[in-house]
Amino acid sequence: MRVSYQQLHDTLFRALAKTGLAPDRAALSARLIADASRDGVPSHGLNLFPRLLTMIRAGLVDVHARADCTARHGAIERWDGRRGPGNLNAYDAMAGAIALARAHGIGCVALANTNHWMRGGTYGWQAADAGFAGVCWTNTMPNLPPWGADTPRIGNNPLVIAVPRPEGHIVLDMAMSQFSYGALASYRLRGEQLPVPGGFDRDGELTRDPAAIEASRRPLPIGFWKGSGLALMLDMVATLLAGGRATHEIPKVPEQETGLSQVFLAFDVPSIAGRDEATRIVDAILADLRVRYPGERALETRRQYLDQGIPVEPSAWQFLERAAAS
Amino acid sequence: MRVSYQQLHDTLFRALAKTGLAPDRAALSARLIADASRDGVPSHGLNLFPRLLTMIRAGLVDVHARADCTARHGAIERWDGRRGPGNLNAYDAMAGAIALARAHGIGCVALANTNHWMRGGTYGWQAADAGFAGVCWTNTMPNLPPWGADTPRIGNNPLVIAVPRPEGHIVLDMAMSQFSYGALASYRLRGEQLPVPGGFDRDGELTRDPAAIEASRRPLPIGFWKGSGLALMLDMVATLLAGGRATHEIPKVPEQETGLSQVFLAFDVPSIAGRDEATRIVDAILADLRVRYPGERALETRRQYLDQGIPVEPSAWQFLERAAAS
Repeated sequence: MRVSYQQLHDTLFRALAKTGLAPDRAALSARLIADASRDGVPSHGLNLFPRLLTMIRAGLVDVHARADCTARHGAIERWDGRRGPGNLNAYDAMAGAIALARAHGIGCVALANTNHWMRGGTYGWQAADAGFAGVCWTNTMPNLPPWGADTPRIGNNPLVIAVPRPEGHIVLDMAMSQFSYGALASYRLRGEQLPVPGGFDRDGELTRDPAAIEASRRPLPIGFWKGSGLALMLDMVATLLAGGRATHEIPKVPEQETGLSQVFLAFDVPSIAGRDEATRIVDAILADLRVRYPGERALETRRQYLDQGIPVEPSAWQFLERAAAS
Repeated sequence: MRVSYQQLHDTLFRALAKTGLAPDRAALSARLIADASRDGVPSHGLNLFPRLLTMIRAGLVDVHARADCTARHGAIERWDGRRGPGNLNAYDAMAGAIALARAHGIGCVALANTNHWMRGGTYGWQAADAGFAGVCWTNTMPNLPPWGADTPRIGNNPLVIAVPRPEGHIVLDMAMSQFSYGALASYRLRGEQLPVPGGFDRDGELTRDPAAIEASRRPLPIGFWKGSGLALMLDMVATLLAGGRATHEIPKVPEQETGLSQVFLAFDVPSIAGRDEATRIVDAILADLRVRYPGERALETRRQYLDQGIPVEPSAWQFLERAAAS
């Protein structure tokens, strides 16, 4: 089934307002969640709403909390997210980084004590919409064995890099695992093998069988030892700058995954490059690339879904409607 | 054969001084190159010296050039490397980023028009030695097909992330290709298969055969589509900030690979975190990891080679000795 963007947004707004979120905060959260589904990322949009509600009801997400700055030095700030809603905290933190970059050319906000930011790309699009290049990442619960180990001790720590462009921003949004558990489940349910090896089976052999990886709990980091190292460094830098929890201190159950550490960087590209030079550089790189660029599919999906409605999983939609009506 | 660190350093110094480099610059370059071999990375130390000399003699590297700042906005600066020696330009740029971070908490220098920085990890160790977290990356000539293409159009764009620690820094130094051409050649010469798939053969099948990948010129980006996207973004951000050449504008022959764009970021972690908190966080993360951390092997190798001498390839050592004597 499909719903219009407005219908999805308004239903999310009503459900979120019922949790006690202030109206302006509920409206922002509804927009961010609806935007993710509109851009073809329902796994980090509508489909994450039940988990958000569970965490609010369990008291793990505090709908009244606003992140505040606890330390600053010039262009870098440390914020305490006070266990507020993860998407709102992240949005505020990227807005803070953009404000710092406007003043200092570059800005950094490190956010501790926050919750799942839902769709990471959101904050890349946010920076690019403001005309800034943006980089941000989050740590997560331990969900990936480091290279050389067989139990999860590093996070898949999604990383976002965004570059603004008048015709459509370039936004990379990637976790450090080759396939998420959500992706593994999707392949399994469709009865498909993975297109490339995605993890180890119980015998320690590389496999394309999604069920075997779900059973072993040994998905692969991207690039084997390389992504393992990168995930470690992202966790370390985020934890250091934010003064928050590292991956090993975060509860391992998705519905209890709280107290995350995140970093938001904004670069005032036009102040250094000028808009014309920036556009020329990006266009020339994309012209030479001749394959899809990160963010291209999101823009196509956005146009299509705004025109034809946004596909929603009936169970997720019904869950939302009940939450909005209750 | 093995040589002492002092012998390697002094011979490099004499050879570099003969190229016209000022004595202080020749000494710094000799130290950086010798340090790479000392840490077990001869491929980006002594073994790159012949290429450096070739490029100096061809006029592609200007031994008299010093990078200078062409634009600034607060904590971010754009520098023109003026085709100077890549390792010296990179060292100066990271020093500039550190100085900016000291003043602003975070600092960024984007460097255009530079040359191969040799061992990227050098500038991570440099930041960490100064007590700062450091991030830097470079673009390269096109040496990797983007995901979905079969000819090289993206660079392997090495990325370095460093975190300081009293007992030994954590330094990740990784290219976006799963295996470099140098690594492929090493496996082939040893008659070994790669430990994991490293590229496509001529029929477009994933393979562990290094010779098949050398023949097809289709090495894999780390994480398939993911590393392809990451390499693209690193090129784009570096080119935008530096106002330099993008990968597609860089000559494809290693001995002519010039005009690179690089980014250097430093974070004044102690000014935000305090040294005790920082050490506690990093130690706790490493204690939980229980596998090697990035940079650990370099430290072990360093201790061993300083004690027992540094292994050098006879042909590379003889080349250097001739250059120092001529």
